[in-house]
Amino acid sequence: MAIVVQKFGGTSVADITRIRNVANRVLKTHHQGNDVVVILSAMAGVTDRLLGLANEATDAPDRRELDVLLATGEQTTAAILAMMLKGMGVQAQSLLGHQAEVVTDCEYGNARILEIGTDRIKRLLKDRKIVVVAGFQGMDIKGNITTLGRGGSDTSAVAIAAALNADVCEIYTDVDGIYTADPNICPKARKIKVISYDEMLNMASLGAKVLQIRSVGFAKKYNIPVHVRSSFSEEEGTMVVNEDSGMEQLVVSGVTHDLNQARITLKKVPDQPGVAAKIFSPIAEAGILVDMIIQNTRSGGQTDLTFTVPKADCTKALEIEKKVAATIDAEDVFADPNIAKVSVIGVGMKNHSGVASLMFNALARENINIIMISTSEIRISCIIEEKYTELAVRVLHTAFGLDRDD
Amino acid sequence: MAIVVQKFGGTSVADITRIRNVANRVLKTHHQGNDVVVILSAMAGVTDRLLGLANEATDAPDRRELDVLLATGEQTTAAILAMMLKGMGVQAQSLLGHQAEVVTDCEYGNARILEIGTDRIKRLLKDRKIVVVAGFQGMDIKGNITTLGRGGSDTSAVAIAAALNADVCEIYTDVDGIYTADPNICPKARKIKVISYDEMLNMASLGAKVLQIRSVGFAKKYNIPVHVRSSFSEEEGTMVVNEDSGMEQLVVSGVTHDLNQARITLKKVPDQPGVAAKIFSPIAEAGILVDMIIQNTRSGGQTDLTFTVPKADCTKALEIEKKVAATIDAEDVFADPNIAKVSVIGVGMKNHSGVASLMFNALARENINIIMISTSEIRISCIIEEKYTELAVRVLHTAFGLDRDD
Repeated sequence: MAIVVQKFGGTSVADITRIRNVANRVLKTHHQGNDVVVILSAMAGVTDRLLGLANEATDAPDRRELDVLLATGEQTTAAILAMMLKGMGVQAQSLLGHQAEVVTDCEYGNARILEIGTDRIKRLLKDRKIVVVAGFQGMDIKGNITTLGRGGSDTSAVAIAAALNADVCEIYTDVDGIYTADPNICPKARKIKVISYDEMLNMASLGAKVLQIRSVGFAKKYNIPVHVRSSFSEEEGTMVVNEDSGMEQLVVSGVTHDLNQARITLKKVPDQPGVAAKIFSPIAEAGILVDMIIQNTRSGGQTDLTFTVPKADCTKALEIEKKVAATIDAEDVFADPNIAKVSVIGVGMKNHSGVASLMFNALARENINIIMISTSEIRISCIIEEKYTELAVRVLHTAFGLDRDD
Repeated sequence: MAIVVQKFGGTSVADITRIRNVANRVLKTHHQGNDVVVILSAMAGVTDRLLGLANEATDAPDRRELDVLLATGEQTTAAILAMMLKGMGVQAQSLLGHQAEVVTDCEYGNARILEIGTDRIKRLLKDRKIVVVAGFQGMDIKGNITTLGRGGSDTSAVAIAAALNADVCEIYTDVDGIYTADPNICPKARKIKVISYDEMLNMASLGAKVLQIRSVGFAKKYNIPVHVRSSFSEEEGTMVVNEDSGMEQLVVSGVTHDLNQARITLKKVPDQPGVAAKIFSPIAEAGILVDMIIQNTRSGGQTDLTFTVPKADCTKALEIEKKVAATIDAEDVFADPNIAKVSVIGVGMKNHSGVASLMFNALARENINIIMISTSEIRISCIIEEKYTELAVRVLHTAFGLDRDD
């Protein structure tokens, strides 16, 4: 008998019919003799509706109260699923974040889980009850309600799975797994059967928005196998596991793209100590996240500096840097929002040389110019012109042997 | 500096504009130097919407889970008002039932308050914070969420006022007070300035649906002055107080009517011990509430027995009694849903004779036949034909000198 944690996202509980579908799936797992803990998101659209209500109420909603408000979304679905299961003749009970003893820090809106007391869940499981936990929410040590940030139900699920030492954490969503590339632009993309935590961490942050990135970190830390699968089919999805667990190691597991980037370039920056700090401190103070930073050496004690920011922050970042450019005597500063980041990811590249040159050659053959490059142990990312995005993803997918046979 | 508890009902928080109106009213009381605790209902219509969702999910929603679901309604309004107040620059904090330590028994859907721990509220008030409590909800000693039944926010408010030994509990609603009769059918009805708890208890149960009856019992027990008033005007409403508090004692304070009654009559019932039990046990087992019971003596060891039940239960009660009539050998059984109960209420009648005859004469003058009569210390009720309801209320209102002068 295994302990199975099943998490269902907003589209999987979007209405009563879909919640009934969830109930049937949960029941099946329960009847197979497993102990089942279900984690639910709010119905699709509800969180946005509540945010709209808060913004209608006041310009800058207080974060503590916003969490109290948002927590009602998951409370609603948890109660409905629990009563539906009971109506189907099976023992079940809902638990809110504080009842499931999900203790977090006090960072309202983006709280981190400190610990999970599993006594109550274990007692309910012992009575063969299905435990339905409201995802996304916890409480701080003073008993205030907190929420874990967008996609936080994934983290709730993995954290509870870790605390229970569950056999698997199943993440049910509206896609049937992780793909080698976005099937919308790369028709030959294949579903990945097994992927490592580290690859998934790179996938998630680069745009394959299936799992909240923090949940993957949690799963890795506690070595909880995560099964990403569709709530609308019985098919197996993608297993996210430890890379040492005997998975076949491809050189590259997937190709991702990210259109949400813009670059800011400062030309002819004096090459002096302290200049980089002057450039990036006001950006950080404005709360803008910088992704890639490239500095090219020029002759004559000057350098060109380019960095990327989220597209939405492009105008603000440019304004800031225009002021900075004046004070540090840079020649020019400009922004370019028409860029894309394409990346190849794979734990296998740690042991293979030539991955970068294979990538650059593939892009070169299509006359795609590379504007910036950044690398990590298991990832190579290139900034290219936005218009080449789809082409770049497809040629890289082919070049690294990821195309589906058919 | 006084402690003021202010409760706002569903129509008073029906949308953001109305909640802003509530915020302004609360702020005003706060700025006058009072400690303010606000109790909120769910937005008008929300509880019914949630009940609909539950009934869509399952035929007989589990009561524990239904309470978890329903509690989201008040959680939403409490969070919104608190963030709005903070947005207006005043310190405020929302508390859910369990955070306000509203401890109840385990009777889901209709829980009773056992005690209220006021430490947290008092600490917040000491910091000059406005405390916004989600009404209608509490928790049992095991930490399960419970709700207090329809209108339960009134009870939350009065109970919290009692626990804090508040100076007044203001109940803001969509009417501007308690009237001597329903102004819709009695144009000369006047707003009552002061009414006793006992009169209010009789008013509430007889149809003046302004206050949850349990909240009045609470207010009486702890002697908390309750001020029923409109959230849409600044006018004074009706004070509900102890009858010894020097209020002017009218013989009759109000005339109420109740159309939600039906009567069941068993004719020629054998006048033997045990027969009444046979008649009423199956009614009680079916969960039907019996209001009035009248037994008339007949000659020949037989009696006629009439009782009233809620109109909605009339058919069911008739079916039950048809079976009973067969076993006890009663001659006939019939139901009449076309009746109304009109009552006159007043603590003054304890010290005045002739109230009953004045009532019966007033009805007789209009040829209104009295079908049943029941009395209590401060109330006389008559069952009449439904079609005479409005006329009966008006003539009684005039007969007892309640008409407005104009």
